[in-house]
Amino acid sequence: MTDHTVKAFTEELDALTQEVARMGGLAEIAIKDSLNAVSRRDTELAQAVIARDARIDAEQRDVEKRAIRVFALRQPMASDLRVVLTAWRIAGELERVGDLAKNIAKRSLILSQGEPMEVIKSVERMGRIVLSHIQQVLDAYANKDVQSAIVVWRADDNIDAHYNSLFRELLTYMIEDPRTISSGAHLLFIAKNLERIGDHGTNIAEHIHFLVTGEDIGTERPRGEAETDD
Amino acid sequence: MTDHTVKAFTEELDALTQEVARMGGLAEIAIKDSLNAVSRRDTELAQAVIARDARIDAEQRDVEKRAIRVFALRQPMASDLRVVLTAWRIAGELERVGDLAKNIAKRSLILSQGEPMEVIKSVERMGRIVLSHIQQVLDAYANKDVQSAIVVWRADDNIDAHYNSLFRELLTYMIEDPRTISSGAHLLFIAKNLERIGDHGTNIAEHIHFLVTGEDIGTERPRGEAETDD
Repeated sequence: MTDHTVKAFTEELDALTQEVARMGGLAEIAIKDSLNAVSRRDTELAQAVIARDARIDAEQRDVEKRAIRVFALRQPMASDLRVVLTAWRIAGELERVGDLAKNIAKRSLILSQGEPMEVIKSVERMGRIVLSHIQQVLDAYANKDVQSAIVVWRADDNIDAHYNSLFRELLTYMIEDPRTISSGAHLLFIAKNLERIGDHGTNIAEHIHFLVTGEDIGTERPRGEAETDD
Repeated sequence: MTDHTVKAFTEELDALTQEVARMGGLAEIAIKDSLNAVSRRDTELAQAVIARDARIDAEQRDVEKRAIRVFALRQPMASDLRVVLTAWRIAGELERVGDLAKNIAKRSLILSQGEPMEVIKSVERMGRIVLSHIQQVLDAYANKDVQSAIVVWRADDNIDAHYNSLFRELLTYMIEDPRTISSGAHLLFIAKNLERIGDHGTNIAEHIHFLVTGEDIGTERPRGEAETDD
């Protein structure tokens, strides 16, 4: 490759990585706003989260298109190939995160129609933990910081423990006051969606590990799984 | 390209499509077995579904590797590009279907520890509908049959309606007998997982439409959404 070609190639890889980082920013805002929609019973904010999800989806398609162009025109190898493949994979994770935030926003609309519930505070607490998990892993991606990625990866343990205890708390709440069963069921799904967002953060940490080291993070996960992870 | 190169290229594309079809077969079996594990309270079968999921994941990685090789060595254009991109995307959907079936199997293990519940019959009924949805869309992929794909795509309406009514039935069941709340919550998640498997089937139908026609199936979906699709 000539110097010129090398430079153009490097720029393409950077542009791809930046587009994924931008998607990450959108996903982060979606999570934050969906959580605020739940706690403030803010239906306008919920509608905004729902409407903005299309943009995240469009970005994902764009990342795929760019990636295919790089595969075809540059035949990237080794670390360059990993940059492209990781961008594609992380874009896929972020698209799912956007969907899950959209779903939380939809459920907040249903919850706003019912009575306020004390137990929602525990859901908010879990939401804050998951949001910071996502923020940390996106920082790790921006800085290609494999050590931070591993820290996030290990912290999934904590999210799963949180989810399992929240699941029990919600069931107890529903059993004690069967009038809360319907709203409680929506909160169960919101908690599950948060746990799934956390899993996508963990997957992103794995992709960063592969990006930087060329190796999978290991098959033995040092963490407890959510009892029924999905 | 020489005749020889064209032939080799066609063979690579066929091999890629066949690998995805094989993944489809594995995902189909995973759904079927996970449903049987629920209805027969068969813990061995559940364990088998859980153990076999790693193979579906490995197949997905392999599809990605093959696809990247084709992008790099052949620079596919137009319909050839769509073959590769669709294989990649459908492999991603099937990997998620495998995860969801694994999760149903895990929940069946928890349910087997509790009392048998009459309402499980309604979950089984939904499971059969979703399974046939997936079988039809995989047939449509094997035959590149866009008409069948559109039929499956439209039928998602039916699955969502089924899910919404099952959701209400389960809540009623839980409200009437609060001792069933814990098992009922697991059944809610199983129903949700089935609905999500149905959504992946619908996504596969969209990918087939793009594969065959080069066009998106349309932004206006002719179907009702599940009230809180995720």
